[in-house]
Amino acid sequence: MKLYNVAILGATGEVGREMLKILKERNFPVGELRLLASARSVGKVMEFGDRKVTVEEAGENSFAGMDIVLGAASNDLAKKFAPFITAAGAVFVDNSSAFRMNPDVPLVIPEINAEDVKYNKGIISNPNCSTIITLMAVKGINKLSKITAMNAATYQAVSGAGAGGPIELHTQNEALLNGGAIECKTFPYQIAQNLIPQIGSFLEDGYTTEEMKMQNEGRKIFHNQDLKVTCTCVRVPVVRSHSIAVSVYTENKLSVEDVKAAIAKEDGCRLVDDPANKKYPMPLDTSDQNIVFVGRIRKDLLFENGITLFCCGDQVRKGAATNAVQIAEEVIRLK
Amino acid sequence: MKLYNVAILGATGEVGREMLKILKERNFPVGELRLLASARSVGKVMEFGDRKVTVEEAGENSFAGMDIVLGAASNDLAKKFAPFITAAGAVFVDNSSAFRMNPDVPLVIPEINAEDVKYNKGIISNPNCSTIITLMAVKGINKLSKITAMNAATYQAVSGAGAGGPIELHTQNEALLNGGAIECKTFPYQIAQNLIPQIGSFLEDGYTTEEMKMQNEGRKIFHNQDLKVTCTCVRVPVVRSHSIAVSVYTENKLSVEDVKAAIAKEDGCRLVDDPANKKYPMPLDTSDQNIVFVGRIRKDLLFENGITLFCCGDQVRKGAATNAVQIAEEVIRLK
Repeated sequence: MKLYNVAILGATGEVGREMLKILKERNFPVGELRLLASARSVGKVMEFGDRKVTVEEAGENSFAGMDIVLGAASNDLAKKFAPFITAAGAVFVDNSSAFRMNPDVPLVIPEINAEDVKYNKGIISNPNCSTIITLMAVKGINKLSKITAMNAATYQAVSGAGAGGPIELHTQNEALLNGGAIECKTFPYQIAQNLIPQIGSFLEDGYTTEEMKMQNEGRKIFHNQDLKVTCTCVRVPVVRSHSIAVSVYTENKLSVEDVKAAIAKEDGCRLVDDPANKKYPMPLDTSDQNIVFVGRIRKDLLFENGITLFCCGDQVRKGAATNAVQIAEEVIRLK
Repeated sequence: MKLYNVAILGATGEVGREMLKILKERNFPVGELRLLASARSVGKVMEFGDRKVTVEEAGENSFAGMDIVLGAASNDLAKKFAPFITAAGAVFVDNSSAFRMNPDVPLVIPEINAEDVKYNKGIISNPNCSTIITLMAVKGINKLSKITAMNAATYQAVSGAGAGGPIELHTQNEALLNGGAIECKTFPYQIAQNLIPQIGSFLEDGYTTEEMKMQNEGRKIFHNQDLKVTCTCVRVPVVRSHSIAVSVYTENKLSVEDVKAAIAKEDGCRLVDDPANKKYPMPLDTSDQNIVFVGRIRKDLLFENGITLFCCGDQVRKGAATNAVQIAEEVIRLK
């Protein structure tokens, strides 16, 4: 079996650690493994199966000899290191949003547009987490009839904000139970027993950067420049797995039965839709796995050509690390 | 000052206790006060200002001499006692959903359709909690241009399920922190750090009874039988205050500025919409008060005649008890 040298940029963060786990889980043919992070993590030892790998500081010369670099760092670091990664001849599969809308950079959910990997010039972007989960849930609908518009409201877990999110929720829950001061470091306000309707920063028109990703990235992934998406992103006190309530509008009218049958057949999706037995997607059930659960499928009441549904998926896995490793699998398949 | 004899049916529950508090807060001219509940609460003493009132068992003869009966009991109990309440000459302001769609029963949010109180024949219904909060948030828009449709996703607090909801969230949070078994009595699944996309029971078409209330009750309150509403109701691990992400479609195109100005002037609403300073509605901020907060107001991206916003309100107060007491105020104003 041919092996590929892999580096993880940002290996010690929430997504980086998950990438390491998923490379192993999916038996990615890893040759040399380089774990790169900032200076303060240098010397930390991480396990990869039987191997123990010491974290190195990411630098301009860190990428020599690498075939694949999985990026789990900030936009700034992605931009800083991208030229050095591609100059070293590696393919950069980047989870940041730095290059997603660059026309030379494929933006890929392998179950939807794997073939786009082919036009890469050294960088492939991993889409936004809520976008991946929503598009995974509706891709079967898009095959029945082209999706023209979506109205989405998200319920996003605290782990979407990085490792600090779950710690903050835990610490605040402890303070609420035992009587202590509520401290806010990761989030601008208390998140325990609260909701924060802001993820990302605000644009001029009142939308957040996070909210616009579903339209902008959805257009690129579905190859549909006319797709319209209205989205409201809300942080909820859930540890892991994002959920989305979404109404999907299509060119043709679809029956609920056909939509259910289509979603049940889709790779990476599970139809969880049996109201009589109280079966529907819940974030607790999708956590720590790669499958997106889709349920509550019903006719939209505003427009004939509409379907409304609820979906959940683990945003650290399918919404980030798993999707990135799947892209890397496509890259080596094409080599 | 003329005083009115008031009974609370279901006085010991979440909403009943709040009704008692709000009668006092709003200086309702209470003469005799009768607190009615099931046999197991009989003898319990509740405070109303300086008065101490002993809870009595609700029975067919409990309503003699009463002017107003505030209902905070189940649909079944509301149906059982309604004939005795009206026969006793009292006006029944009922928070259950038993009579809401009855054409002889006004369904009233006083800031919207106070005049409907006039056609009552002894029963006036208090609308569903999420419906009240959403319609309060959008009533200013409806004045600018008739609302034709809404797409809503709710984030509903555990106290919406009665007194057992907050206890269950607390107990489960304790178990998660200290390591105990998760018990589910009020909700079908763990609600701590989870979401449950079911409130009410399921209808044939896949919607829940709760989800259909926003369309059915919205039509009656706004006097608009053509109003279309698609709604997804989700229980979230928040103690108090429901939140709703809603897209509102109107006959005419509206500007965001006009909508903000209109909402800012509405009774019972507060415009909380200053993204640059991270000001937006959050359930923690609206809890234990009567005002509905409205923010995140922006142009909908699907349709020209659309506005998308986020609102929060205390569903035990304005969503139930406060609204019922306000209806009672209208009743005595008309006497």
